[in-house]
Amino acid sequence: MTPYQELETRFRRLANLNDAREILHWDTATIMPQGGAEARADQLATLSVLAHEMLTAPEVKDLLDAAEGAAPWQDANLREMRRQWVHAAAVPADLVEALSKACSTCEMVWREARPASDFAMVRPALAEVLRLVRETGAAKAEILGCPVYDALLDEYEPDGRAADIDPLFDDLAAFLTDFIDEAIAHQTAAAPALDPEGPFPIAIQEQLGARFMKVLGFDFHHGRLDTSLHPFCGGTPDDVRITTRYDESDFTQSLMGVLHETGHALYERGLPRDWRHQPVGSARGMSLHESQSLLIEMQACRSRAFLGYAAPIIRQAFGGEGPAWDANNLYGLYTRVERGYIRVDADEVTYPAHVIHRYRLEKAMIAGDLQVDDLPAAWNDGMVELLGITPPDDRRGCLQDIHWYDGAWGYFPTYTLGAMTAAQLYDAATRADPGIVAAIGLGDFGPLLAWLGEHVHARGSLLTTRELITEATGRPLDPAVFKTHLKTRYLS
Amino acid sequence: MTPYQELETRFRRLANLNDAREILHWDTATIMPQGGAEARADQLATLSVLAHEMLTAPEVKDLLDAAEGAAPWQDANLREMRRQWVHAAAVPADLVEALSKACSTCEMVWREARPASDFAMVRPALAEVLRLVRETGAAKAEILGCPVYDALLDEYEPDGRAADIDPLFDDLAAFLTDFIDEAIAHQTAAAPALDPEGPFPIAIQEQLGARFMKVLGFDFHHGRLDTSLHPFCGGTPDDVRITTRYDESDFTQSLMGVLHETGHALYERGLPRDWRHQPVGSARGMSLHESQSLLIEMQACRSRAFLGYAAPIIRQAFGGEGPAWDANNLYGLYTRVERGYIRVDADEVTYPAHVIHRYRLEKAMIAGDLQVDDLPAAWNDGMVELLGITPPDDRRGCLQDIHWYDGAWGYFPTYTLGAMTAAQLYDAATRADPGIVAAIGLGDFGPLLAWLGEHVHARGSLLTTRELITEATGRPLDPAVFKTHLKTRYLS
Repeated sequence: MTPYQELETRFRRLANLNDAREILHWDTATIMPQGGAEARADQLATLSVLAHEMLTAPEVKDLLDAAEGAAPWQDANLREMRRQWVHAAAVPADLVEALSKACSTCEMVWREARPASDFAMVRPALAEVLRLVRETGAAKAEILGCPVYDALLDEYEPDGRAADIDPLFDDLAAFLTDFIDEAIAHQTAAAPALDPEGPFPIAIQEQLGARFMKVLGFDFHHGRLDTSLHPFCGGTPDDVRITTRYDESDFTQSLMGVLHETGHALYERGLPRDWRHQPVGSARGMSLHESQSLLIEMQACRSRAFLGYAAPIIRQAFGGEGPAWDANNLYGLYTRVERGYIRVDADEVTYPAHVIHRYRLEKAMIAGDLQVDDLPAAWNDGMVELLGITPPDDRRGCLQDIHWYDGAWGYFPTYTLGAMTAAQLYDAATRADPGIVAAIGLGDFGPLLAWLGEHVHARGSLLTTRELITEATGRPLDPAVFKTHLKTRYLS
Repeated sequence: MTPYQELETRFRRLANLNDAREILHWDTATIMPQGGAEARADQLATLSVLAHEMLTAPEVKDLLDAAEGAAPWQDANLREMRRQWVHAAAVPADLVEALSKACSTCEMVWREARPASDFAMVRPALAEVLRLVRETGAAKAEILGCPVYDALLDEYEPDGRAADIDPLFDDLAAFLTDFIDEAIAHQTAAAPALDPEGPFPIAIQEQLGARFMKVLGFDFHHGRLDTSLHPFCGGTPDDVRITTRYDESDFTQSLMGVLHETGHALYERGLPRDWRHQPVGSARGMSLHESQSLLIEMQACRSRAFLGYAAPIIRQAFGGEGPAWDANNLYGLYTRVERGYIRVDADEVTYPAHVIHRYRLEKAMIAGDLQVDDLPAAWNDGMVELLGITPPDDRRGCLQDIHWYDGAWGYFPTYTLGAMTAAQLYDAATRADPGIVAAIGLGDFGPLLAWLGEHVHARGSLLTTRELITEATGRPLDPAVFKTHLKTRYLS
């Protein structure tokens, strides 16, 4: 075997191991009896240690140094192997362990501190996490030759760099300051959207979700829909498992959540079959992944076209009557704009403000310009600046998200990069094939998926995210497209 | 760390890895979408290779040679570590792989040959499996210092030896020759048991099964009940997952199947907590495992005491009316005796004849005294001798069980050893605590479980099976107890 072939064999094994972890994670979140939690943590920890050992074995570096691949796929595969290796090998084992323990501790304290709205309770644990995250980032930054924040970001968003993100987010933040007001004013001028009257039985919500998943092209021969506290898309490309949660008094959130996760699932299913279990065959990064769920949810399914098709089906499923079930009213419900404290409840317009806010704060904390002690005040200042509201307490402020407390620094910007990418890809797709929107209006996602399959899904990690967007849309990521989308949807 | 401590650490890791495999096996059998099969096979193969590497790493032998443990638990732990190591390390890697492939191939052909009743179709593949199984057994036999068949048996039944089993099985076979006739004659003399009229909705069967599981002491905080094509007990001691299958026209099979698997589950749950993830903390072997399911099913739950308690609950669940729902009639249904061709459909009386038949055949094939070509004829001869009937075709003859085709040689005897052990343990338990049967009649399994917990479950693999039975019942395995049980139940 050539060094390249040997690497393929090793990374295939690693991928199988990681796929096993994915299924166990899914099981943990959906159906595991509570009493199995401790044993499950042991199983996952063991598989995680084995994966780390497999990736950081001394032979891997030698093989990476010696390997040569044929362009373009093998070359790209080697590049992605090196990236995985750097992220695993750059950090000393004792630092990996210390960070992992600090995160577990901090997350546990956070679970008490959040409902109690008691930031002081979790402050020391968060400071320790931050200290170790900065140390980890510094170790990676040295090898990657980039700033510390970028080294952290790189794990979620390969080749993502704050210097590229800053101008995009500054532009968007400036736009949103006035735009949120305008969108709310425009909405207030119209008749308010009506809430359909429930209850909405969970069994029907589930059937309806599954029905729309099929309309979107989800293949139940290769996947499942289940229930979990926090919706997610898990599993593996040939066994994609999405989850949702149900509220008997409101079907709209769960239904759109299912469509969102289906967008993630379609990306996983569409990844290049010839490169299964190789780094180059994997999803490109978190912003592109989020772009696929947001493209399906925000661009395609919250559109008048889709809701025109879906409204009678939804009405019939629940046996609904009256104007609340009209497509026009559902569109009103699905495009409501409101300033709020909580990111996960935010709408399409205000969501980016929440994200930009967090991005700025985490960058400052990693740089050492903002101390953990000063986070609550800085949080509230930023909320006033970006959203014009002051959280009444830390529970609805800097304690609301698990990310920082659990060690995920550099993750937040991918949400809004994903939203901008979704808008730009959808715009390019519907320009390239003007029949896409009409087809969606008939419940036919074939044309859209054909375009996405070719320009996004089947490319795996062959290109960088920037290259992929440029090839697919003719230019790098450009906030103008997202802004135009918002203006079209919310001001007309 | 001492060599002993180092071994504990390694075997804990191995146990976590194997627990992960258990959950993935469960997932495969219950809820995996069909399209995930190939990827799942890859995941399981990778975990299996990793486990094998972990166990056969050169350091393990050195550590086993150097380690000293304190009696009795650490000593026993070392003994069981050595056993696992022998079974893994005795066989050259290329033989392991060849056998694994031969089994996969043979099983696939068998899945076609069985419905077609075409033994010739699968004969070459089975011959190849047998050849490699004999080679594997020979490699193990050399290290274990025992005959080849015993070396195969040892994997399922630690320290099990054909020389010990032969007299027990010969005795039982001789007994059954007349006893089956007598039992059937006795049954024919009485009024025939009535079949309750269905259909029996699956949802109700499921609720009823779960209700009785709770009565038996199954803790849903540490386990689940699901559906699969072939019922089994899987998962891990802290997350025990049993399955069943439902037939809307007959609830009796599924219900008793659930109680059977619950017996397995209670054993797993009762294993010594202090020795979780260590070989000595695991179940003792297949015959003892089967004894726990058969004790619950055959001894406790097919008794007049339990059915007297259960009948009104069952009747109420299905809204049944009439004499078919009486405890006495249910007892008649659950103790029906009938000569049949199929092992898995056999009753308590004829089942051992099926097993002894297979035990004799597989021993002869491993010894080279019976060739694969002659199996169908030998099968039918044995059926005449032991059960007095001739299978009309190979589908209902030597093609019916997956075991041999899938490489499980030396497994069959554990079923009947388990049945005999169950009778002997139940006899000892009810002598030691005469309140056990009365409590079961009130739906209280506490006294029985207390005795089993102390004398069986909590002992893990501390003792050999023979030692455990002797300590618990005052003598080694003795077919007389099982025969007395059969006579009491079926002739009076």
